[in-house]
Amino acid sequence: MNFMLKAQNAILYECGFSCDNVIFLKFGDEAFFVTDGRYETEAKEQIRDAEVVVANRRNMYPKVASLIKDAKVKKIVYDPKEWSVYDFENLAKEVEKVEFKKELDFSHKRRIIKSETEIELLKEAAKFGAKAFDNFATFLKTEGCGLSERRLHYEAQNILKNYGEFELSFSPIVAVSQNAAKCHALPLDRVLRDEDLILFDAGIKYGGYCSDRTRTSSFNSEINFKKDQSFSSKKIQKAYDTVLKAQERGIKEARSGKKANEIDRICREVIEKEGFGDLFIHSTGHGVGLDIHELPIISKESETTLQEGMVFTIEPGIYMPGEFGIRIEDTVVITSDGCEVIGR
Amino acid sequence: MNFMLKAQNAILYECGFSCDNVIFLKFGDEAFFVTDGRYETEAKEQIRDAEVVVANRRNMYPKVASLIKDAKVKKIVYDPKEWSVYDFENLAKEVEKVEFKKELDFSHKRRIIKSETEIELLKEAAKFGAKAFDNFATFLKTEGCGLSERRLHYEAQNILKNYGEFELSFSPIVAVSQNAAKCHALPLDRVLRDEDLILFDAGIKYGGYCSDRTRTSSFNSEINFKKDQSFSSKKIQKAYDTVLKAQERGIKEARSGKKANEIDRICREVIEKEGFGDLFIHSTGHGVGLDIHELPIISKESETTLQEGMVFTIEPGIYMPGEFGIRIEDTVVITSDGCEVIGR
Repeated sequence: MNFMLKAQNAILYECGFSCDNVIFLKFGDEAFFVTDGRYETEAKEQIRDAEVVVANRRNMYPKVASLIKDAKVKKIVYDPKEWSVYDFENLAKEVEKVEFKKELDFSHKRRIIKSETEIELLKEAAKFGAKAFDNFATFLKTEGCGLSERRLHYEAQNILKNYGEFELSFSPIVAVSQNAAKCHALPLDRVLRDEDLILFDAGIKYGGYCSDRTRTSSFNSEINFKKDQSFSSKKIQKAYDTVLKAQERGIKEARSGKKANEIDRICREVIEKEGFGDLFIHSTGHGVGLDIHELPIISKESETTLQEGMVFTIEPGIYMPGEFGIRIEDTVVITSDGCEVIGR
Repeated sequence: MNFMLKAQNAILYECGFSCDNVIFLKFGDEAFFVTDGRYETEAKEQIRDAEVVVANRRNMYPKVASLIKDAKVKKIVYDPKEWSVYDFENLAKEVEKVEFKKELDFSHKRRIIKSETEIELLKEAAKFGAKAFDNFATFLKTEGCGLSERRLHYEAQNILKNYGEFELSFSPIVAVSQNAAKCHALPLDRVLRDEDLILFDAGIKYGGYCSDRTRTSSFNSEINFKKDQSFSSKKIQKAYDTVLKAQERGIKEARSGKKANEIDRICREVIEKEGFGDLFIHSTGHGVGLDIHELPIISKESETTLQEGMVFTIEPGIYMPGEFGIRIEDTVVITSDGCEVIGR
């Protein structure tokens, strides 16, 4: 099979190196990493199983086209999500008599079952990610009271990075009380006080692979990010217990052979039963790998059948606009006899 | 004119808010910010002059198509760089009898002349960005010796962020000696020692607007990021003096009415004259605004005529593979009678 890639992590997966200006071509056993002069030295040092080809930084298409012509290929698979209309047309106009065949999520499909090596890296990432939750709880206990979300967001990033040891999987979410109702909250000037609810969604990268985890806790001098939480508000406690029950049910039922939409339905039913159905406004989970969002998607619409080696999140939530939001998330790997929460 | 946008900063420019899942439609005086439930609350709180429309997170196109139909527009401008093949086809298949007209860099062209308010924000960003260079020099003086590039990269980020006050314009480059020859160097385990060369390229955001600056210095207990630098290697000193001369010549010549490619040529000629022509492997500069790379491009190919209110970098460099790299960069604004370096 012949294919061409443009997404950084899709390319990293194929040849062990990537950068922000590269087109990767794979024609049978041959592979080309087409980039510009800025990345030549590093690419040559770090790449495996591909030839580094240097092209004009602002227009790499004539070079890519000549490689396609030389290889005499007739059909090339690509993912229409990876290519802008501009990039694709610029390439296509340089090339004749080649069929460019769309395949949605081509690279993500190649990466949906993680290898043993990848699972080891994901487990290490999850372990360091979970450690950062403990470290952030320690920080909150001693210094958190009175800090703004903005400052908490900054401190959380430093704790996650562990003095530069790790990159982040994504910009963490540190949301306090009402702000947690916005499930992708941006940090504000809201200050953390006793009895506030705090939602923390964060991950780090280890060997390129992401961790992803969320906990929602009650803030006081004993704060921790364990799943056992007590809130002074009965309404919040009921919503919290419901989300926890949904999440644990989801984990219990996830196994090889089940459909992804069944896991979504199982979590959703727990939440609907308690009358919060309308407030669970996102899907139950997503795959995790080199990208923070990969396949499988765990949603109502997802017909994917779970298989050993798939790694994804289970993260139901309840969001009460203007009041509070709750989400509990773990990353799991499908094993030979069920699923394993990683990072604990 | 009617247009549709997908890039986050293009949308931020039009309505004062943006997020990572939005399509913005402008039909004459009407504007729509189409997003999913996760961003509804914040969008409604922060947007100006546009209606927030909530659509299905994973497929917003039927909603977008119905807005297009209702508005009865016949032609919509879009930038083919902003739209993936997938997104564009998904929208186009929902809509009949509408001409989608490509206009490359549509939003960047709208933003090429900065307003007075924007220039104020860019100046503030540049001022705080320059302050971070001083703070990083102070850190290096007292604690830098013996730290790895990776650790320096981490510390530089914290200093740039000033305890969470600022976001970064981009991941800073902190490159030591040989590693500086890779002009987009990734941080490595190389340790900083006396007499090393250190290249620092960094910026922060203020009010959404980016700063961008590079200095190359000789590391010792007196390190600073001033332009006056002494290196113990004569070869490095000659290259440094050449880059500095080129950069200052570029700044001196930049004014309203000149072509961008003339500025590039002026800088390049200084470097060629000293025999380093082949080692200046990138263009002389780029526009700076909400995005770190905007128009105008200051390159050999750029036919843009400079005008009052344009803001861009002047950043020639010399890269000697395996030995060292030098780049000196300032951000300038074209004024009524020349150009002004901002951030000093």
